[in-house]
Amino acid sequence: MSVPPLPNIMIEPLVRAALLEDLGRAGDITTDAIVPAEARANTALVARQPGVVAGLDLALLAFKLVDPSILASVKHPDGYRLSSGDVIATVTGPARGILSGERIALNFLCHLSGIATATAAIVEAVRGHRARVTCTRKTTPGLRAVQKYAVRVGGGANHRFGLDDAVLIKDNHIAVAGGIKPAVERARCAVGHLIKIEIEVDTLVQLEEALAVGVDAVLLDNMPPDELRRAVAMVGGRAVTEASGRITPATAPIIASTGVDLISIGWLTHSSTALDIGLDHLE
Amino acid sequence: MSVPPLPNIMIEPLVRAALLEDLGRAGDITTDAIVPAEARANTALVARQPGVVAGLDLALLAFKLVDPSILASVKHPDGYRLSSGDVIATVTGPARGILSGERIALNFLCHLSGIATATAAIVEAVRGHRARVTCTRKTTPGLRAVQKYAVRVGGGANHRFGLDDAVLIKDNHIAVAGGIKPAVERARCAVGHLIKIEIEVDTLVQLEEALAVGVDAVLLDNMPPDELRRAVAMVGGRAVTEASGRITPATAPIIASTGVDLISIGWLTHSSTALDIGLDHLE
Amino acid sequence: MSVPPLPNIMIEPLVRAALLEDLGRAGDITTDAIVPAEARANTALVARQPGVVAGLDLALLAFKLVDPSILASVKHPDGYRLSSGDVIATVTGPARGILSGERIALNFLCHLSGIATATAAIVEAVRGHRARVTCTRKTTPGLRAVQKYAVRVGGGANHRFGLDDAVLIKDNHIAVAGGIKPAVERARCAVGHLIKIEIEVDTLVQLEEALAVGVDAVLLDNMPPDELRRAVAMVGGRAVTEASGRITPATAPIIASTGVDLISIGWLTHSSTALDIGLDHLE
Amino acid sequence: MSVPPLPNIMIEPLVRAALLEDLGRAGDITTDAIVPAEARANTALVARQPGVVAGLDLALLAFKLVDPSILASVKHPDGYRLSSGDVIATVTGPARGILSGERIALNFLCHLSGIATATAAIVEAVRGHRARVTCTRKTTPGLRAVQKYAVRVGGGANHRFGLDDAVLIKDNHIAVAGGIKPAVERARCAVGHLIKIEIEVDTLVQLEEALAVGVDAVLLDNMPPDELRRAVAMVGGRAVTEASGRITPATAPIIASTGVDLISIGWLTHSSTALDIGLDHLE
Amino acid sequence: MSVPPLPNIMIEPLVRAALLEDLGRAGDITTDAIVPAEARANTALVARQPGVVAGLDLALLAFKLVDPSILASVKHPDGYRLSSGDVIATVTGPARGILSGERIALNFLCHLSGIATATAAIVEAVRGHRARVTCTRKTTPGLRAVQKYAVRVGGGANHRFGLDDAVLIKDNHIAVAGGIKPAVERARCAVGHLIKIEIEVDTLVQLEEALAVGVDAVLLDNMPPDELRRAVAMVGGRAVTEASGRITPATAPIIASTGVDLISIGWLTHSSTALDIGLDHLE
Amino acid sequence: MSVPPLPNIMIEPLVRAALLEDLGRAGDITTDAIVPAEARANTALVARQPGVVAGLDLALLAFKLVDPSILASVKHPDGYRLSSGDVIATVTGPARGILSGERIALNFLCHLSGIATATAAIVEAVRGHRARVTCTRKTTPGLRAVQKYAVRVGGGANHRFGLDDAVLIKDNHIAVAGGIKPAVERARCAVGHLIKIEIEVDTLVQLEEALAVGVDAVLLDNMPPDELRRAVAMVGGRAVTEASGRITPATAPIIASTGVDLISIGWLTHSSTALDIGLDHLE
Repeated sequence: MSVPPLPNIMIEPLVRAALLEDLGRAGDITTDAIVPAEARANTALVARQPGVVAGLDLALLAFKLVDPSILASVKHPDGYRLSSGDVIATVTGPARGILSGERIALNFLCHLSGIATATAAIVEAVRGHRARVTCTRKTTPGLRAVQKYAVRVGGGANHRFGLDDAVLIKDNHIAVAGGIKPAVERARCAVGHLIKIEIEVDTLVQLEEALAVGVDAVLLDNMPPDELRRAVAMVGGRAVTEASGRITPATAPIIASTGVDLISIGWLTHSSTALDIGLDHLE
Repeated sequence: MSVPPLPNIMIEPLVRAALLEDLGRAGDITTDAIVPAEARANTALVARQPGVVAGLDLALLAFKLVDPSILASVKHPDGYRLSSGDVIATVTGPARGILSGERIALNFLCHLSGIATATAAIVEAVRGHRARVTCTRKTTPGLRAVQKYAVRVGGGANHRFGLDDAVLIKDNHIAVAGGIKPAVERARCAVGHLIKIEIEVDTLVQLEEALAVGVDAVLLDNMPPDELRRAVAMVGGRAVTEASGRITPATAPIIASTGVDLISIGWLTHSSTALDIGLDHLE
Repeated sequence: MSVPPLPNIMIEPLVRAALLEDLGRAGDITTDAIVPAEARANTALVARQPGVVAGLDLALLAFKLVDPSILASVKHPDGYRLSSGDVIATVTGPARGILSGERIALNFLCHLSGIATATAAIVEAVRGHRARVTCTRKTTPGLRAVQKYAVRVGGGANHRFGLDDAVLIKDNHIAVAGGIKPAVERARCAVGHLIKIEIEVDTLVQLEEALAVGVDAVLLDNMPPDELRRAVAMVGGRAVTEASGRITPATAPIIASTGVDLISIGWLTHSSTALDIGLDHLE
Repeated sequence: MSVPPLPNIMIEPLVRAALLEDLGRAGDITTDAIVPAEARANTALVARQPGVVAGLDLALLAFKLVDPSILASVKHPDGYRLSSGDVIATVTGPARGILSGERIALNFLCHLSGIATATAAIVEAVRGHRARVTCTRKTTPGLRAVQKYAVRVGGGANHRFGLDDAVLIKDNHIAVAGGIKPAVERARCAVGHLIKIEIEVDTLVQLEEALAVGVDAVLLDNMPPDELRRAVAMVGGRAVTEASGRITPATAPIIASTGVDLISIGWLTHSSTALDIGLDHLE
Repeated sequence: MSVPPLPNIMIEPLVRAALLEDLGRAGDITTDAIVPAEARANTALVARQPGVVAGLDLALLAFKLVDPSILASVKHPDGYRLSSGDVIATVTGPARGILSGERIALNFLCHLSGIATATAAIVEAVRGHRARVTCTRKTTPGLRAVQKYAVRVGGGANHRFGLDDAVLIKDNHIAVAGGIKPAVERARCAVGHLIKIEIEVDTLVQLEEALAVGVDAVLLDNMPPDELRRAVAMVGGRAVTEASGRITPATAPIIASTGVDLISIGWLTHSSTALDIGLDHLE
Repeated sequence: MSVPPLPNIMIEPLVRAALLEDLGRAGDITTDAIVPAEARANTALVARQPGVVAGLDLALLAFKLVDPSILASVKHPDGYRLSSGDVIATVTGPARGILSGERIALNFLCHLSGIATATAAIVEAVRGHRARVTCTRKTTPGLRAVQKYAVRVGGGANHRFGLDDAVLIKDNHIAVAGGIKPAVERARCAVGHLIKIEIEVDTLVQLEEALAVGVDAVLLDNMPPDELRRAVAMVGGRAVTEASGRITPATAPIIASTGVDLISIGWLTHSSTALDIGLDHLE
């Protein structure tokens, strides 16, 4: 089953705000001055490089919100692996609306497809290993829901969506609590039965403490491959193992080969490159 | 004079929204469970790689909005060129608030510093040439004002902020209007006296037409250096010349050597890498 | 450790909206007409019946937002078990502001204290059993975060905060999936490593299927005590057991005596009675 | 004529906000994981206990906002007196949307029907007397317009909607003004010609003062039936008489028998029990 | 007692929105470019023509929201009758903030003072008569609360604040209802006890019908003075009498001499002239 | 080509907010009480005085947002020069919705048509001269985009839309900078290539300084006609010339006869009179 779309009610506020940010107080003064109201355009969203489509719903909604009479026809939905030159969708209707909505449509589509593409590359790099690829909370302010969606589209998994949906105990929490054991116990006591607890450990000694008290997952931070391998062995399936720390497409296969369950990568959302997609005017 | 800060009233809604996106419906359940209300923390925002600071106001506001009793002391304000290890600011106060606000503070700071750093690198690369570096409307939805601010902090200039503050005539506008001359004339007739007109040209023939009708600026799209040089000569100071089209730090000096006034680069805002900045807990 | 407060940034929008709903387009015309600007009032929030305080931060913020010069002094914070007549806090300052903010302050305080009080009653009723008391998603629209907070203040635990922070598979999901096994497997495959999976079962046969495929929790819906007891035995600690279905303070002890881990009760948030608290003017 | 519905523009923001509160940042992860996009559902909103329907527009809008292709057919509109088992409306369409919108639809419908049902019970209890039943400003923050609507649907009348649409002089206003006469005179002088003035009196002496200066209505607070009867006689039609103070369905007939025009009851909106309504899946 | 101010919580959203509308996406680029951060200014809001001040709170809040360190000192508060040259308030602090906030401060102050001044002129013109001057719902979208406040500051009274706080039966309502009597009866039956009923009548025959059924107020629309006088006599104190229909400062005294209770004038809010107030820089 | 309309996405928030401001918490209680749900109305927006239509989109949207089943047929779109009695549009559908939306529709239409009409009168007065008529930033808070649109509809041009889309150097900027030359140089250095620079000058000496340093436009403030004429001659086409300062329809032709390029008039937006337009019920 493909990744289910986010309901329209979740994405419309984002698209609406982006359009208003661009239209400002006078609207598209170039198009309004030059393009007659009756002019029509027949266009296509076209990939200029290979990658994975994500965010097509947001892009098409941008056109629709500028002018509801614009019609779109989807050729390759979110998740499709594009070759350069592939038509993702056609967009037809009043030229004014298409020209005015173009940049916002592309800003969403290129950004989210970039995330999906980067995710897919890592997923591909670790194919054959058990490791899944996951994102972090290092997202662009305001876009967390859609960036995490793009990670899913690229074949990745989602880590926490916020501070409130899982416990993730980090070094400073451990320091304040006076150790791993009291930190985990306080968390277990405080949270509801549907909240999982993960703890960040930097050493195998810490890992042992964490396993002794019992956690759902361990974040093995910045461990070299050998240490990761030993950590996975120590865990022995008693917790989900997550490797993190500056993992790149180049290092991901080695990390994955250690047998960890998860590889988490912040730059999927904070530093991935936009995918180059353009709007071509057809005859 | 350093780049003036954006007034607080413009950035507070962004920071507030980002915090609420992260706090969700239950707040920071990890910190609330583990860290006592009376615990205090003494921390510093520290550069983990060289770069240019931008967005410090947003980062510090994130802490303040979580807990107004948190105190910050700025060591290196926006625009400062950081070495790895530099302390940007210290942040002191209730540990809960600092831990809960940390990620959002860093998300803004790393993202905007990344843009400033990328901008500064290009600015540096073209030093000695007349060319200024400028961004585009290819920004992340919702963040245009602060991303463009980060470009200024990095030493770059700003292009249009939206569809409404300048005319930029592109190929499709020309096609619909039936030529460069009618397109420019329609625009000139429609807009107010404080609106400038720029036109995108792909060939020297088009450039000649644009200069004949008269425009404030010409966007020389995807021209090779030799053609750019000829274009600059043709213009002869009658319009601002802007080069665009997949310009990288590597190619920027060559482009700049053609004598263009401006080099515009979309990836400054849509694809730059976040600067690595962390929050260290001090003794 | 007492229940940590929600950060101000999470509750201020609610209080602000409630005040504007009450002030309308003309403000407090009674007070404005009758009470001079210089009149001062010395008042106290007083319990008129026994119960558990919750929402005091919201109540005091209501006064502060109407007039920042109003001073409050907390006598009994959230979680305190009030006797009738107890002073919860004193509120002193300009009479106009106190009179104009009174109703909204009380609307929050009485509502949330009512939820905390109802929760505490059930918690008390099942004391000595392992069962924790938990709420549901049957909350009043717009108030989920603060109602769930009130449940915590009353000694209860929180169930899901929304559709997105845990999987809860209900009968219709099972029907569509064609059985418990495929439903759980689809869910497990789709969600991240920090998401727990709970499933609703109506019979012991279903329970067996659920345990066979493996889940984090089972919701035992509308089972009589005997069946619950057998279910708990069958589970044998392999999953969290949750009893639900029209549980009242009267029936809660019997349910708890079956050994379930959790008792979930919708009416804590959708039908509990407001606690009677008033604002008394002191000499 | 039945109670006119609130225009869609007034209820849509509430329903939209409630859905977003529930969908969070990831949407309905259970349904998305398990239910195929093409699955359809044929469901009915069914009363599980007798009562009065209110809020059906909000419930159906919840489904529509999640998926506009969901179709609803109303069987028993707002105001209908339901028997247990009655189908209120059928809801048909994509199963995903119906399952994702179900809880919010029910949260509105059960809450508002509970208020209408409680109101109707009191109205029924005082049938044969002149007294109308009215609500207060003790409403749930954010829901005043719809709760007051539910009171109307239940056959009740509405008191003030806010601090700004009528004058209600209470004991503290009288104390500050130095008496009933100056308080009423100040109010009369300050407000426009379409604003009515009501005053709260605790004794027959105060009532005499109020009648002497002239008011539109008197709130007879916490008076026993005999005193109420004398008060009504004293007023002799010169003002609307309103009885208030912990009136219950049991005491309402006695209060009504005193001849008062209005019985105001805060718990209609702050403490009524949700009506049990469920969503049944039909064959 | 002077007109009580609107609470800050009611005006801040308006001022904030107006500032953001003006600051756009780049802020005050002129001031930022030219005025150093450390420059200070010492300025005064000065009347350039006689009139009545209104809206000073909004003006000063505009400065404060741009820069909280700006200090203001009020010389003549709302309601003061200014002579040309009068200093209304001094505003001192960072020059950048004062220059950036100036236009929005003046836009509110000049607009609202214009309404107060126009109102005061009519109030003065009818002095000696019983008639009060009142505004209508013909207000500028978004500004109803503050425009009605300005009318009060000018000595006028407020009519309805919206469609929901009083019944005003107009000709079309009468037509649909099939007469004055059924229209009034339907209204009386539908609304709560604190809602007044006014009806618009065009003829003395209609007036007689209205008085027969009983209403709180009659709007005597477009009647010439003689007819108004007869109307007032017919009413004989049984209802409030309101004259309306293109009343100007010139015609107001004649209308007032007919003995009506109220003169309502739409142009107070929709067409009054802004009062000329400027910001002078002092030595 | 007629003035292009503002896209719906830009005007809908304004109309929605205005309707909610009017509907308040109870909606249109008069219409709801008196007009049956099934009653229909056939109405027309009719000019009661000559003028220029502007804002028809907002007016019709007001009806549509109250009840989407209302149908409108435009007879004379924005920009049309109305005679008294002209039908602007017909509006047909459920009577309730039409009556409830009428005032907000008219508030927008009369206000914006008033601005367009005032603008057109000045434009007409200066016909035959080169001068264009332009507005200022003296707009009503919240309505800048639509007021500036109305100016365009009336044949005027737009000045700056905010503080951020052009540089306008005023006397205080010059004073702080220490002269015209440094002020202009700082601005030129700070802003992007698509930003124009205008400077306000009060004397011909200042004008000479401004021309020497070079600017895009000069605002000739409060100069008498003779001085304006000399200023225009001095400028000799090197900059756009704008005359400002209390220009009225009476003085505009004289000002225009001096040869200035622009006449800017603040009262077009802050003090123009609403155009009298009504909603007539047809047979």
